[in-house]
Amino acid sequence: MIARVARWSADPMALMVSAQKRMQSTISKADRFVVPVDRDALPRGYLVATTFAGIKKAISPAPATDAAPQHAPKPDLTLLVSSVPASVAGTFTSNKFQAAPVVHATKALQAQGPHARARAVLVNSGCANAVTGQGGYKDTEALVTEVRKHFPAGKNNGSETCSDVLMMSTGVIGVRLPLPQMLRGIQHLMRGQVLQSNPDAWLEMARAFMTTDTFPKLRTRQFKLGNRLCSMAAIDKGAGMIHPHMTSPGGLHATLLGMFATDAPVATPTLQRCLEEAVRESFNCISVDGDMSTNDTILALANGQAPATDSGAPVDGEISEATHPELVSIFARELKAMAIEMAHLIVRDGEGAEKFVQVCVKNAGTYEQAHAIASSISTSALVKCAMHGEDANWGRILCAAGYAAVPASSPEWSLDPTKVNVTFVPPPSASNLSPIHTLKNGVPQPVDETKAAELLSHEDIYIDMDLQGGSWEKGACAEAVFWTCDFSKEYISINGDYRT
Amino acid sequence: MIARVARWSADPMALMVSAQKRMQSTISKADRFVVPVDRDALPRGYLVATTFAGIKKAISPAPATDAAPQHAPKPDLTLLVSSVPASVAGTFTSNKFQAAPVVHATKALQAQGPHARARAVLVNSGCANAVTGQGGYKDTEALVTEVRKHFPAGKNNGSETCSDVLMMSTGVIGVRLPLPQMLRGIQHLMRGQVLQSNPDAWLEMARAFMTTDTFPKLRTRQFKLGNRLCSMAAIDKGAGMIHPHMTSPGGLHATLLGMFATDAPVATPTLQRCLEEAVRESFNCISVDGDMSTNDTILALANGQAPATDSGAPVDGEISEATHPELVSIFARELKAMAIEMAHLIVRDGEGAEKFVQVCVKNAGTYEQAHAIASSISTSALVKCAMHGEDANWGRILCAAGYAAVPASSPEWSLDPTKVNVTFVPPPSASNLSPIHTLKNGVPQPVDETKAAELLSHEDIYIDMDLQGGSWEKGACAEAVFWTCDFSKEYISINGDYRT
Repeated sequence: MIARVARWSADPMALMVSAQKRMQSTISKADRFVVPVDRDALPRGYLVATTFAGIKKAISPAPATDAAPQHAPKPDLTLLVSSVPASVAGTFTSNKFQAAPVVHATKALQAQGPHARARAVLVNSGCANAVTGQGGYKDTEALVTEVRKHFPAGKNNGSETCSDVLMMSTGVIGVRLPLPQMLRGIQHLMRGQVLQSNPDAWLEMARAFMTTDTFPKLRTRQFKLGNRLCSMAAIDKGAGMIHPHMTSPGGLHATLLGMFATDAPVATPTLQRCLEEAVRESFNCISVDGDMSTNDTILALANGQAPATDSGAPVDGEISEATHPELVSIFARELKAMAIEMAHLIVRDGEGAEKFVQVCVKNAGTYEQAHAIASSISTSALVKCAMHGEDANWGRILCAAGYAAVPASSPEWSLDPTKVNVTFVPPPSASNLSPIHTLKNGVPQPVDETKAAELLSHEDIYIDMDLQGGSWEKGACAEAVFWTCDFSKEYISINGDYRT
Repeated sequence: MIARVARWSADPMALMVSAQKRMQSTISKADRFVVPVDRDALPRGYLVATTFAGIKKAISPAPATDAAPQHAPKPDLTLLVSSVPASVAGTFTSNKFQAAPVVHATKALQAQGPHARARAVLVNSGCANAVTGQGGYKDTEALVTEVRKHFPAGKNNGSETCSDVLMMSTGVIGVRLPLPQMLRGIQHLMRGQVLQSNPDAWLEMARAFMTTDTFPKLRTRQFKLGNRLCSMAAIDKGAGMIHPHMTSPGGLHATLLGMFATDAPVATPTLQRCLEEAVRESFNCISVDGDMSTNDTILALANGQAPATDSGAPVDGEISEATHPELVSIFARELKAMAIEMAHLIVRDGEGAEKFVQVCVKNAGTYEQAHAIASSISTSALVKCAMHGEDANWGRILCAAGYAAVPASSPEWSLDPTKVNVTFVPPPSASNLSPIHTLKNGVPQPVDETKAAELLSHEDIYIDMDLQGGSWEKGACAEAVFWTCDFSKEYISINGDYRT
């Protein structure tokens, strides 16, 4: 079927607005989304260092001639070190083909249990170390061991294991890491003067995370926990193969490559719980292409080095739900807000993305149901093409909602087509415009196509679907928000144009 | 992550072969896939007629000037009539937003139960009559009633209901049918001289099914059931919004727009069972874009008018599992083979499709598990882009297998990454080439890139994934086959290029 809602020519005014918006979008994403980093907002007690270990070069096609490479080498190996063993938490992909670093980090956290600590995180891009068998796993172990042996034994909790150094990898599947170069790279990184703590060093680390990303993704924030002024830095990367999926809520679950480093004093089990909560409503609610990677990993470190100030109740030791429930709430809120901010950057930099699309599904029976429907809409190729075409095609949106794999709920609830509202609401960048109601109680509404064209010409498109199906008496009027991008020819070029 | 397997430049010979293949693909699909229809292979006792009722024109954008349309009107309303009430069976979309004709046909079949009969099938393109509320449902009823009143009452099983006329619609969502024109169209179609039974009339009917399809899809076949020489004609359409999904195996389930008309004598419950079996391994195993439509419908009619011949055991009355188990097996086999043939045509004509990709997953624990993995691979945007780029990217294939929503099985089985083989096998059109083994027991194999490029330059690409996970002792070494196409810029153009 065609499944297009009827559409008429927009008027010249709307077309002009659309042209303006497109002109804005010719400013590079790097210019728009790389923000200056405040030195004071960087977390205390962390040092970072980055190098070019030749990983990308090693796995690239051999040049046709012996001529020098045309592009400057890109950073591909980076290290974060905490001055003291930090509380650590992680969430990992639920893809059955977990890469070696994912298996290693999962084991390391599980082995240490509720007292898990980390001294360092090693990250490489260019090679995912996925589907590389036992050899690939041993490569990860060798690299982690190399990092660890640079720490005085006394600072490692007295443990002889390597489990307090974690690793993340991203890049090509099925190729082994170039171990000798990487070991030399680590020796270089561990030199005292190379490890630094300044905005440039952090930004260079973010660059070393990148693969098909077009800009480095680094953000910081500050908040107070009692008398402690806490800072947090976050780095992530994405671009393609982005659609994190959970398998067992509550357990270690899926998402993509990211790192949160804070100097807040947080106990490990609390950090893990806060991270899982944050990931559930951020990284697990985004899609670029519907493909869940073999390497998705989010790590969070909290080293407790935040300075005390003169105001606020004194906080000694690590906070937990038992000792400081109110401070844990503050920390959880900050971490979730930052996770959402970082997840949005992934969507904005999705392969070929020209649009940032928010899908909000309201009043389902449960959060899981709302999430399943929002995920289905956000993954639909037809919806993503319609958003690319700035077409208020509610028919495709409804269709994708209709085939969502909605989990059964108790009390039983099912989607009622005669109750559904679909509205395009103005994003914050277009708050002067009016919402476009396309469907009310399942009935198509007359749409002012000029106004619709103007609203959808904005880079940010917000779709609201109200199922009016929740039971307020029973407290079940669940809402889920998902973020996705459009599907463009550029996506096909990036992922399919090998032939030309 | 990038998730590309390393790839080196192919040699000039392979590039030449590739260029040759692409040249072949410039011959239009209509020239390659529309085959001559044998008049003798058309089923007995059916008449068809087709017209242009102005449905497509009615819902199209108004022309900028009053100038005549540049293209000849396309057929959009078509009718099949059986000379006697025929056994009838159907499978329908499991999308929650079922279109009015789907709801109507489902009710009609359920109301009649095991003795369901149909005299006629009315089909329109250009308007899906989906999300049109009670008004849209009444439109379907009015059209069906108009068809039915042309039949003498005595031939309708004595029933006063309209349930022996079924309707299928495809096209734009959220727009009402132009009822007056369609009622006039039906009056035209029901005139004696308009209804015919010849190859041209059937091909014109197939044209009236089309939306974004680039060629009409009609096939016939003949087979013997005892002494009866049976014929069967099938028509279907697809192009976009194609990814049928089952909800409750055994019940009425999902698929797309298609019709099988045979003169074989088959009891209604037997026809329903055979159709469900056929759909399960044909239409429910294809994907163009992962989107399941609101209108998917397959109908099968069997009117028993096949002529008797001098050879074979006499068959009187309708066959069923109880009376003629062997003949039912023959019929089921023929119906399934034809369903697979018709499903393949949908994939070949998928929006923007340049490749026909078969994904075979072997030795899972259950068929459902194999199906889920094959479906996941076939829906992956990254895999479909790789196939477009003729890139033997087993990393993406493996990744998509790893996140498949595999149903739990009993006895418990789970995907073991260290046992998986991935092979590109030569399609029948390239049977002189060798298979390319990319992964054996989870270990990447050295790939001759020249040979891989040659194999993947063919329009048809066959991917085999052997999980080696089945238990032969327990008889669980299930296999599922799925068919998909590549993702091209043309797909984005068809579905997203409204702006230009």
